[in-house]
Amino acid sequence: MGDRTYDVVGIGNAVVDIISRVEDSFLTKHDLQKGFMQLIEEGAIAKLYDDMGPAIERSGGSAANTIAGIASFGAKTGFIGKVGGDEFGDIFRHDVRSLGVAFDTAPLPGDMGTGRCLVLVTPDGERTMSTFLGAGTGFQSSDLDKEMIEAAKIIFLEGYLYDQPEAKKAFHEAAEIAQAAGTKVALTLSDAFCVDRHREDFLKLVKQGADIVFANEKEATALYEVNSVDEAAQNLAADCELAILTRSEEGSMILASGYRVDVPAAWVEEVVDVTGAGDLYAAGFLYGLSTGEPLETCGKLGSLAAAEIISHIGARPEIELKTLLPGVLS
Amino acid sequence: MGDRTYDVVGIGNAVVDIISRVEDSFLTKHDLQKGFMQLIEEGAIAKLYDDMGPAIERSGGSAANTIAGIASFGAKTGFIGKVGGDEFGDIFRHDVRSLGVAFDTAPLPGDMGTGRCLVLVTPDGERTMSTFLGAGTGFQSSDLDKEMIEAAKIIFLEGYLYDQPEAKKAFHEAAEIAQAAGTKVALTLSDAFCVDRHREDFLKLVKQGADIVFANEKEATALYEVNSVDEAAQNLAADCELAILTRSEEGSMILASGYRVDVPAAWVEEVVDVTGAGDLYAAGFLYGLSTGEPLETCGKLGSLAAAEIISHIGARPEIELKTLLPGVLS
Repeated sequence: MGDRTYDVVGIGNAVVDIISRVEDSFLTKHDLQKGFMQLIEEGAIAKLYDDMGPAIERSGGSAANTIAGIASFGAKTGFIGKVGGDEFGDIFRHDVRSLGVAFDTAPLPGDMGTGRCLVLVTPDGERTMSTFLGAGTGFQSSDLDKEMIEAAKIIFLEGYLYDQPEAKKAFHEAAEIAQAAGTKVALTLSDAFCVDRHREDFLKLVKQGADIVFANEKEATALYEVNSVDEAAQNLAADCELAILTRSEEGSMILASGYRVDVPAAWVEEVVDVTGAGDLYAAGFLYGLSTGEPLETCGKLGSLAAAEIISHIGARPEIELKTLLPGVLS
Repeated sequence: MGDRTYDVVGIGNAVVDIISRVEDSFLTKHDLQKGFMQLIEEGAIAKLYDDMGPAIERSGGSAANTIAGIASFGAKTGFIGKVGGDEFGDIFRHDVRSLGVAFDTAPLPGDMGTGRCLVLVTPDGERTMSTFLGAGTGFQSSDLDKEMIEAAKIIFLEGYLYDQPEAKKAFHEAAEIAQAAGTKVALTLSDAFCVDRHREDFLKLVKQGADIVFANEKEATALYEVNSVDEAAQNLAADCELAILTRSEEGSMILASGYRVDVPAAWVEEVVDVTGAGDLYAAGFLYGLSTGEPLETCGKLGSLAAAEIISHIGARPEIELKTLLPGVLS
């Protein structure tokens, strides 16, 4: 992929996470499906927030978490996403830029605040998310930085963008710009419900537009409407150049033109909060891929980054991930 | 102290903490004195923030942390302090109210944002703070809720309020309202530099206005300009009805009308971040005191709450502190 300004450029929702611990009964009371993400309106998020206990705030957003992780490994990265002109926008911008990520998307003018996601962490470490997209609903094709995409080895797109028509259009346009420039297109399916809402388009994208696809078991089986991971894996392997199936504590499965690598999960003393596990797996994997490592090493880096993120609250690394490299790279 | 609506009402700066890990060299570079709090202006905080790595945001403020802790133990509490009309104000309000704390101070009108404190945590777990008071500079006597103060068993005031002339005036007025109503006045000296800036007034307050005084070793020795903790303790014991000297890992010393109780620190597996240690010690102590526990038990509750807070990032409890009670109360 030669000498490009950016190893990986991410495109996704700019979101600040508002994280709180809850009991399972809180999810039941608010009719929330454990482990999934739902989009909610401003009134509904205010109501849910009012009923939650004390929280901490931390930058989030799926692709943004991945890019933060790749930057923390030491690679050259950029991010494209829409914040508002509020304090949460300042937090989001600071947190990515302070990692060296190039981030210059103009904030949405007007009063619409930055997107926020209520992340409810149950005692088992599982997370259930309710997202108000806010200024993210203003994201459109004109926000795409064409030069940045063309100057990247890989662009990384989150499936969540599909939930807004304008963002979905931008998503496709970004993929076209990338293909024309010889930039690889990587995609995460994001969430099984999201896949369910946009199955046909995702299938088309997996077959034609994307070079690299990340999915967990629920997303992959939802995409092909099959009952087993093996069936989903066979389909994915047939449809894409490079597919990565993440399987929580069972590790990950890398499928590349008829060839399969299984990578174990990295050891974690205690699973505190699984938020960002998939995002950070993708970070480690794409860091490895963009710097020319073999696929097995890419998978190991993904496992290590995921292990770091689930050992604490929040989806941004608490250590410099490049400190993990000496144990993996020879 | 009879049957009152509130066990403890706190008055202090309403602040959101922006917490980040740094190396010691970062403090040196920015000329920050480790372990202390400095007030800075908006331009200076923006500059420091720009140079910091990724952060997490969490409600803070010294007296507010104490009140959150007391509420988490299960007592009836209120808080008086000034936020702005921004997102940080919403966070602050939500986080105290969701613990059941009565908090109705009107936000400052206009564009001034809520106070924020950059908390830099070094590898040894020590914290160094730079605070921009923001809307807190608009706090004045008219913000005092007289009925709330009169309906409290104890009011708890933070010394940091002394750094703004109008807030200092409100501080004294609150103490007068309390005294007239038979509400006990508790005070924390907050910070050795703060004591240094206002020594004469603090001395007067300790001798005449306050019933209960919390100080750490640095603050107590700064107040009396003495070199040893023992000298400071003798002075404090002579000057107040009830003084509590906190001594980090050496525990605390309770001095009450010629009578002294030493309480050991509670065991902590790893000191992650000492932010809020003094605030939460005061929470445990005041919870015990307002619910009629003997002084030694008050001190033990203080040690336990402090141990909880230093075992994680941030100055608000991550567990319900009332779960600590069965081990202490018989």
